[in-house]
Amino acid sequence: MKLLRFGEIGAEKPGLLDADGQVRDLSGHVDDIAGASLSPETLDRLRAIDPATLPIVDGNPRIGACVGSVGKLIAIGLNYADHAAEANMALPEEPIVFFKATSCICGPNDAVEIPRGSVKADWEVELGVVIGTRAKYVSEADALSHVAGYCIVNDVSERDFQLHRSGQWVKGKSHDTFAPMGPWLVTTDDVADPQDLAMTLSLNGTAMQDGSTRTMHFSVATVIAHLSQFMTLHPGDVIATGTPPGVGMGKSPQVFLREGDEMVLRIAGLGEQRQTCIAARD
Amino acid sequence: MKLLRFGEIGAEKPGLLDADGQVRDLSGHVDDIAGASLSPETLDRLRAIDPATLPIVDGNPRIGACVGSVGKLIAIGLNYADHAAEANMALPEEPIVFFKATSCICGPNDAVEIPRGSVKADWEVELGVVIGTRAKYVSEADALSHVAGYCIVNDVSERDFQLHRSGQWVKGKSHDTFAPMGPWLVTTDDVADPQDLAMTLSLNGTAMQDGSTRTMHFSVATVIAHLSQFMTLHPGDVIATGTPPGVGMGKSPQVFLREGDEMVLRIAGLGEQRQTCIAARD
Repeated sequence: MKLLRFGEIGAEKPGLLDADGQVRDLSGHVDDIAGASLSPETLDRLRAIDPATLPIVDGNPRIGACVGSVGKLIAIGLNYADHAAEANMALPEEPIVFFKATSCICGPNDAVEIPRGSVKADWEVELGVVIGTRAKYVSEADALSHVAGYCIVNDVSERDFQLHRSGQWVKGKSHDTFAPMGPWLVTTDDVADPQDLAMTLSLNGTAMQDGSTRTMHFSVATVIAHLSQFMTLHPGDVIATGTPPGVGMGKSPQVFLREGDEMVLRIAGLGEQRQTCIAARD
Repeated sequence: MKLLRFGEIGAEKPGLLDADGQVRDLSGHVDDIAGASLSPETLDRLRAIDPATLPIVDGNPRIGACVGSVGKLIAIGLNYADHAAEANMALPEEPIVFFKATSCICGPNDAVEIPRGSVKADWEVELGVVIGTRAKYVSEADALSHVAGYCIVNDVSERDFQLHRSGQWVKGKSHDTFAPMGPWLVTTDDVADPQDLAMTLSLNGTAMQDGSTRTMHFSVATVIAHLSQFMTLHPGDVIATGTPPGVGMGKSPQVFLREGDEMVLRIAGLGEQRQTCIAARD
């Protein structure tokens, strides 16, 4: 099942993508794709609906982030061996954990802002994991049972802000629009193996990242179990699980985002994102 | 004006502390102390109410965190020169910024959990700044106009998780109950100078921290202006502005929190917090 949110920013409605690629309106059945509506019970209820009975959404509405009211946007650093190498950083012994501001979440095709003073804005295609049920002190064996589904996240990063502005990565990870999310939340029953998904990112038509979740250093299950030792994961929390090689910082010469650039991100079965870079708004 | 939230966890109602120290029920006038209700217009409207007309809250209800639905809980590291020295860390050239999970926010007198495997749980009395209006690319001169009020935050920290568990402080800063907040949100008109507030923390009756926001390295205005270069601050975001000397990690010998310990925190004009340490719940 592919769930999504459509409509203007801040006024998104819940929707479902049917087998023909048509957006259907779910707002008669659920308030939002968020929090409690990500429970197994609610997802089962939605799954039981015949999509043909849902109103077709006409036109070409904006697609919002596929999860609303995200409580925590957690990200894992250096989680692909080749990416750690290109970043010139050691592969960690335990998952590196940081937060992105939830205020930086935007739709999968919204414009990405280049912050004022930015010289090293960069991209990171990542597998996003959407939590469906509360998880605290869970085992690796049990971890995936707490997942509602998966989505694409672009973990947009300003490397100079991240690494050279007095400590902690958050400064380079949290600008408005730095977390395009979606287009769809694909529920776990439609993702055969989250550790075997091809993922790519192109910039202005040129392939930049070309990897697979197969080479993830700490698996989704390991990451969830690990995080749950340090904090409670709640329904609607999202984990961006790290990026494969091919970020701009790792190129030779380095390549960074400029206004007018277009990024296209794809993960097998999870759809496509397409963002144009613009100047930051105030 | 002293605003607060009272009632059971997750079901708090908005309230006001009157001049006699009596809690009054504000739920007839505002849904919650959160988000849009922190705007200058709403605060002016609440200020115009004669407290004597509000229902008295009987009994001794639990006091919740003084702000609900916090979007971002931002914290500033090493923001007092003496604390940086005791932490054996250099004073930063720009504010060090990290996030705490919003899921760790709790009431000012709720029990604080010691995580499993914790060996270095520590305290940090801090001035909390509650944002009242959207702030992006704001100047230092304009920064304080975006503040709704101030409160006490205990930035509870697990030093081993923070510093020795593979990078980024978030692992030691985000456990459930690691951000007692309140008891009151004191609006700016009742805080003559946020840079001249005495602050103390005692452990089991022994003074541990005894400082003043006067020795803050980066002022509240500087911090807000700086943050607004990297992300948009929204109404209901809270900034914990750093801690003065006297944390357990800085003592000789070091002192860390154990089950049964009691912390008492005070900031002049902002009230008192009192927490007992307990084992982590799953």
